Amino acid sequence: MQRRFDQQIADLREKLLTMASHAETAVNRAVQALVERDDSLACRVEADDSVLDQFEVALDEICIELLALRAPVASDLRLITVAMKVSQNLERVGDEATKIARRVLELIREPPLKSRVDLPRMSQLAIEMLKGALDAFVNGDTNKAANIIRHDHEVDALNKQIHGTLVNLMLEDRQTITRCLNLMIVSKSLERIADHATNIAEEVVYLFEARDIRHATQMQPADRV
Amino acid sequence: MQRRFDQQIADLREKLLTMASHAETAVNRAVQALVERDDSLACRVEADDSVLDQFEVALDEICIELLALRAPVASDLRLITVAMKVSQNLERVGDEATKIARRVLELIREPPLKSRVDLPRMSQLAIEMLKGALDAFVNGDTNKAANIIRHDHEVDALNKQIHGTLVNLMLEDRQTITRCLNLMIVSKSLERIADHATNIAEEVVYLFEARDIRHATQMQPADRV
Repeated sequence: MQRRFDQQIADLREKLLTMASHAETAVNRAVQALVERDDSLACRVEADDSVLDQFEVALDEICIELLALRAPVASDLRLITVAMKVSQNLERVGDEATKIARRVLELIREPPLKSRVDLPRMSQLAIEMLKGALDAFVNGDTNKAANIIRHDHEVDALNKQIHGTLVNLMLEDRQTITRCLNLMIVSKSLERIADHATNIAEEVVYLFEARDIRHATQMQPADRV
Repeated sequence: MQRRFDQQIADLREKLLTMASHAETAVNRAVQALVERDDSLACRVEADDSVLDQFEVALDEICIELLALRAPVASDLRLITVAMKVSQNLERVGDEATKIARRVLELIREPPLKSRVDLPRMSQLAIEMLKGALDAFVNGDTNKAANIIRHDHEVDALNKQIHGTLVNLMLEDRQTITRCLNLMIVSKSLERIADHATNIAEEVVYLFEARDIRHATQMQPADRV
């Protein structure tokens, strides 16, 4: 019975990692579609989103079954409750990637903005945070997780800065308004992806150190745009 | 031992309802601050947000303890996992109320827009959905829960409509740009509050009918602005 339980825990972990890799791919594709103005790639991100939805439902089912049939304790119990939260965050990452892809489809109908908006830097940071949070999870690396949590403020600041730049552009030239709005939504989605990475990192700390650090490290949400 | 367990489940339920009432109050106050341009009320919403954060952490602790010590099954197990999800949604509702309050503080620095933007209708719908989802939870009313889920599309459509109205206003008169942006964020936050109400309603269906209806009823996130 213990062996079957260990197998189920291993399956759960593996399914979560597969889901994580799908989420990462979705964000990478959405950002690539944005940079390369590639509509077919953007459409693909949208089409793939339902896979993440299905993973979330399937993972919850496995977790509930494990809780009901196995009555796990200590670190196994933490892994199961953390798995439910991580999968929810990954599903939301997929939602944000889809939102970006939708905005890309709007953006490429108009010529690119001449002014520099530092979305590539923002994308890079958000993707690194997501990748780092998942690595920290796989390797039980709570130092790495703590490091990711510290980076969240940087992304929030970048989002604010980009928002400000875009407001100025809109004020200077009303022809840019719809493009600026689309870019604001993309920037906000990237910031949310970083938030989800932060949530996952917090769960990693909880999983391996049994400490709940949520709300101890985060800025108030209202500090974000 | 069973009696003590029943007592703990009753405590959990009561704590969740207290949290729900705090979340509802936060949204009501944020909307009232918006309508009445009341900065002291807006500041109060911000100050109260940490209460919801603390509730989320406390509820998770209780749930993990119940799972670890009591190994609950069937409906008790569902209640505990649902409680964790509902409290997370309520905490996010508090975040959105705080975001609205922050935007109100910006908005009242400028004169009100002359053009009618139907935020009161949107607020009313979002608040009704949240209240309804919590009533459905308390009374185990899955019909009511299903009804709330159906209303979510209406709020999404209203948000899109308001977004369009605000884009037109910005295009007509660049003096309105910062106000329109703030109102867009408020509208988006109200739409998210309705999303959280929908999530709670879906959990209510799961809790009382043991059916997972997530992603079966929802629009794709990308259909939202």
